[in-house]
Amino acid sequence: MTINGELLIGSTIKKGSASSFRAVNPATGEQIEPSFGAGTVEDVEQACVLAQDAFDTFRNTSLESRAAFLELAAQNILDLGPALIERAMQESGLPQARLEGERGRTVNQLRLFAKVVRDGRFLATALDSALPERTPPRPDLRLRKIGLGPVAVFGASNFPLAFSVAGGDTASALAAGCPVVVKAHGAHPGTSELVGKAVQAAVKAAGLPEGVFSMLHGDGRTIGQALVTHPAIKAVGFTGSRQGGLALVRAAAGREEPIPVYAEMSSINPLFLLPGAMAERAAQIGTGFIGSLVMGSGQFCTNPGLVVALEGAQLDQFRDAAATALQAQVGSTMLSPGIHKAFNSGVEKLGKEEGVTLVARGQCGTTVCAGQAALFETDAANFLANPALEDEIFGASSLIVRCNSVEQFRDVAEHLDGQLTAAMFLNESDRDAALALLPTLERKAGRVLINGYPTGVEVAHAMVHGGPFPATSDSRSTSVGAGAIDRFLRPVSYQDLPSWLLPEALQDANPLGLHRIKDGELVKG
Amino acid sequence: MTINGELLIGSTIKKGSASSFRAVNPATGEQIEPSFGAGTVEDVEQACVLAQDAFDTFRNTSLESRAAFLELAAQNILDLGPALIERAMQESGLPQARLEGERGRTVNQLRLFAKVVRDGRFLATALDSALPERTPPRPDLRLRKIGLGPVAVFGASNFPLAFSVAGGDTASALAAGCPVVVKAHGAHPGTSELVGKAVQAAVKAAGLPEGVFSMLHGDGRTIGQALVTHPAIKAVGFTGSRQGGLALVRAAAGREEPIPVYAEMSSINPLFLLPGAMAERAAQIGTGFIGSLVMGSGQFCTNPGLVVALEGAQLDQFRDAAATALQAQVGSTMLSPGIHKAFNSGVEKLGKEEGVTLVARGQCGTTVCAGQAALFETDAANFLANPALEDEIFGASSLIVRCNSVEQFRDVAEHLDGQLTAAMFLNESDRDAALALLPTLERKAGRVLINGYPTGVEVAHAMVHGGPFPATSDSRSTSVGAGAIDRFLRPVSYQDLPSWLLPEALQDANPLGLHRIKDGELVKG
Repeated sequence: MTINGELLIGSTIKKGSASSFRAVNPATGEQIEPSFGAGTVEDVEQACVLAQDAFDTFRNTSLESRAAFLELAAQNILDLGPALIERAMQESGLPQARLEGERGRTVNQLRLFAKVVRDGRFLATALDSALPERTPPRPDLRLRKIGLGPVAVFGASNFPLAFSVAGGDTASALAAGCPVVVKAHGAHPGTSELVGKAVQAAVKAAGLPEGVFSMLHGDGRTIGQALVTHPAIKAVGFTGSRQGGLALVRAAAGREEPIPVYAEMSSINPLFLLPGAMAERAAQIGTGFIGSLVMGSGQFCTNPGLVVALEGAQLDQFRDAAATALQAQVGSTMLSPGIHKAFNSGVEKLGKEEGVTLVARGQCGTTVCAGQAALFETDAANFLANPALEDEIFGASSLIVRCNSVEQFRDVAEHLDGQLTAAMFLNESDRDAALALLPTLERKAGRVLINGYPTGVEVAHAMVHGGPFPATSDSRSTSVGAGAIDRFLRPVSYQDLPSWLLPEALQDANPLGLHRIKDGELVKG
Repeated sequence: MTINGELLIGSTIKKGSASSFRAVNPATGEQIEPSFGAGTVEDVEQACVLAQDAFDTFRNTSLESRAAFLELAAQNILDLGPALIERAMQESGLPQARLEGERGRTVNQLRLFAKVVRDGRFLATALDSALPERTPPRPDLRLRKIGLGPVAVFGASNFPLAFSVAGGDTASALAAGCPVVVKAHGAHPGTSELVGKAVQAAVKAAGLPEGVFSMLHGDGRTIGQALVTHPAIKAVGFTGSRQGGLALVRAAAGREEPIPVYAEMSSINPLFLLPGAMAERAAQIGTGFIGSLVMGSGQFCTNPGLVVALEGAQLDQFRDAAATALQAQVGSTMLSPGIHKAFNSGVEKLGKEEGVTLVARGQCGTTVCAGQAALFETDAANFLANPALEDEIFGASSLIVRCNSVEQFRDVAEHLDGQLTAAMFLNESDRDAALALLPTLERKAGRVLINGYPTGVEVAHAMVHGGPFPATSDSRSTSVGAGAIDRFLRPVSYQDLPSWLLPEALQDANPLGLHRIKDGELVKG
């Protein structure tokens, strides 16, 4: 499996002619061969036009053949074997077991969406019978959802497989019947090329139009902007920094035709430690918290960056246990020199903020980009007075906020920006406090957890990986789990169509065996 | 039922202290008593804070009590009796029968959403069982949707009841559990006050927090902008001009926290007349077309502003029948002097465009703001070359586009902006042409009709009143029908909640009797 530094425009494989670059091994700081050529604005144009041309054919494939295509892409990725894992390790600094796990997740996502496609529930079919005798007569109305159109997907640095070229955004967009143009992340171009070619091969083997999938290299400012502002692109999926996400949101809003941007950006994922749980197991919660904090060098969107607890002896126990666990941690390699540098300056800045004190740091790692974990603390009054304390530090850094009453938990919660997750640690004796806090947490976060740490985002039907701004740019959706397909769909109503013109999903005989809303009632038929 | 020119801020009723204005009777051009005081930015602040304060309580009301509240609001509107219809006639120039019908529609919308709320399907509940033995263990995950937060609703001029103070946007937002702050339309302030007080009384009688509903008077530039940019407001519903809608979209995008704007703007609702249908009944289609065109003085979002047909004898028949029908039409009063003026200048401008000729005009009406209907024609080459020919003229004006082949229908369709509706007139012999055109029409429009005119938007489950930009600012939704509730919801996932903390909709015993997705399968239980 050679990596040639190429980009994929439909079925074309070619070396990009704009500026060239190499990946960097964050463990050593050394460049990795080969060089990659960035795409040009003309390449973007070509990929987008191919995607547009492919759209009608692709969205009108049968559910079965679209599902089989997703499964084939999954198989092709698995068939890349150890070469994929090796390249991803070099480019990301992530360990083998984690990347093998992530490959499994990537493949499972594609397979889940194959199941979602076969199931057909995403079509949201509804039928209202004609009432010809009524005054005025009611026409026959039938509704199904169709894809929005070609989708631009931006690979994320922190999931070089599961949220990159064939990750959740790509899988859900393809499942919705939308062609995808990927802008590969510059930190793992070789991994991207391998996966991109696996998807490209699946497009070809499935006999689909070539424009169903393209992948370009290049930076956000030129290729990224050209992609998001291309008239053929009808939606955007992005996971990354707040700055990067907001740039895409602005670019999309500035188009003649504004389009949806699903940017998953920043979140500090607060843990609220209620007194009953703390009386029972403060030290245990503290140790578990550090396990979640340092996992993957803290490079998860759901990393617990804030802990809210009551001042007192139990918080001391929590803090001591957390500090002990943290000090035993040897820093692991972060994803890129840029991320490592941003982490260090974020930690340095937080340590200098007024009223913030250092609780403990982890040990230095041995690699160039090893992240040294950090835990700070402050009091609630200080936290509420200084918005900078709420800034996400991407990596293993967290801040304890000491409150002088449980009522103050709500002040802190109300003060927070939107989050991907919010957790409470509690037991039965915390019932009143938990019931009082829940409505605020629901309003602030996409997922509320009890007695659990937010890292670990299950790919399931009831998962929400999303949340109010700035956790995401659009809280009406999830980027993980079956519901992610809904982001790329819109409803179309069909009035009085003759049977020969009706889409299969809406035909009287219900050949797809769907659950449908018939005159307001959900029926299978 | 006296009208005092007041605004409603929660339970407070008061005269606005900013500039005062009176409604104008468009039939006579005369002002109508009393004067209304516009609200101030402080009034906006107060209404928004009350709405924010009301949100948690309101969204946590039981489905039954929320449904009963919507029904009570409907009943209170009915109980206004003839006073409401009389005032609406004076302010809108619309005839009694139309307004009585519209009142019925308004009440039915509120009742439909009461049914939607009781049904609970909008909660989109899903449950994934815990798998404690798996590596890693899977947590218990449960999902439901909750309201986005307070919603700003802008009353529309063309539906002073059904898309105004207690219209579709308000009904669907309240159904979703979102408090509503209405900016009343300046053309029908008295109608707005009557309906607003009916809703306000329902809030009080239902024992809900006063902030569930407020209504302000004032212009879009000050009160409208203040409302859309207030941090407590989490979504916007609007029906009106493209200019007005885009101003709100821009204001919302410029907020620190961007929010969804559902602006239903402009659409010319093309009719494609296929040759088989024309051979059969060209004159009949032409007569029916004029009936749709002049209905309500052409002041419907779904008014048929474009007709695409093959050059030839059958088009001549269509044109003759349409011209005859049009010339028999006496212009009826338009909604306001401003709309009447804009219609006249739109018609004048279109008549002067190169290659556009007048087919026929209706008769002048007798009232000050009577709109004189107009029908123009041009050829496809000219239409494709001049984007101005696609501009919506709000009122009874339409343009016939002559094509020299059925293939050119697709060129015209592809050239079009996004639409609320697109219709084909066809018979069995048009099968190939219809199948070829359908994918384009699906991509361009929210509703595709066969052998029907687009005016008349059924309030039903399978209705889509929406469509790609610029028909709306967000094609992922509908503003008419049961699906409108989805615009104001977001999903929340609950992980490992103890039973005593779980929302009713997600409890094991399924006390609400919902259909739920359990481990991927739809079940009632």
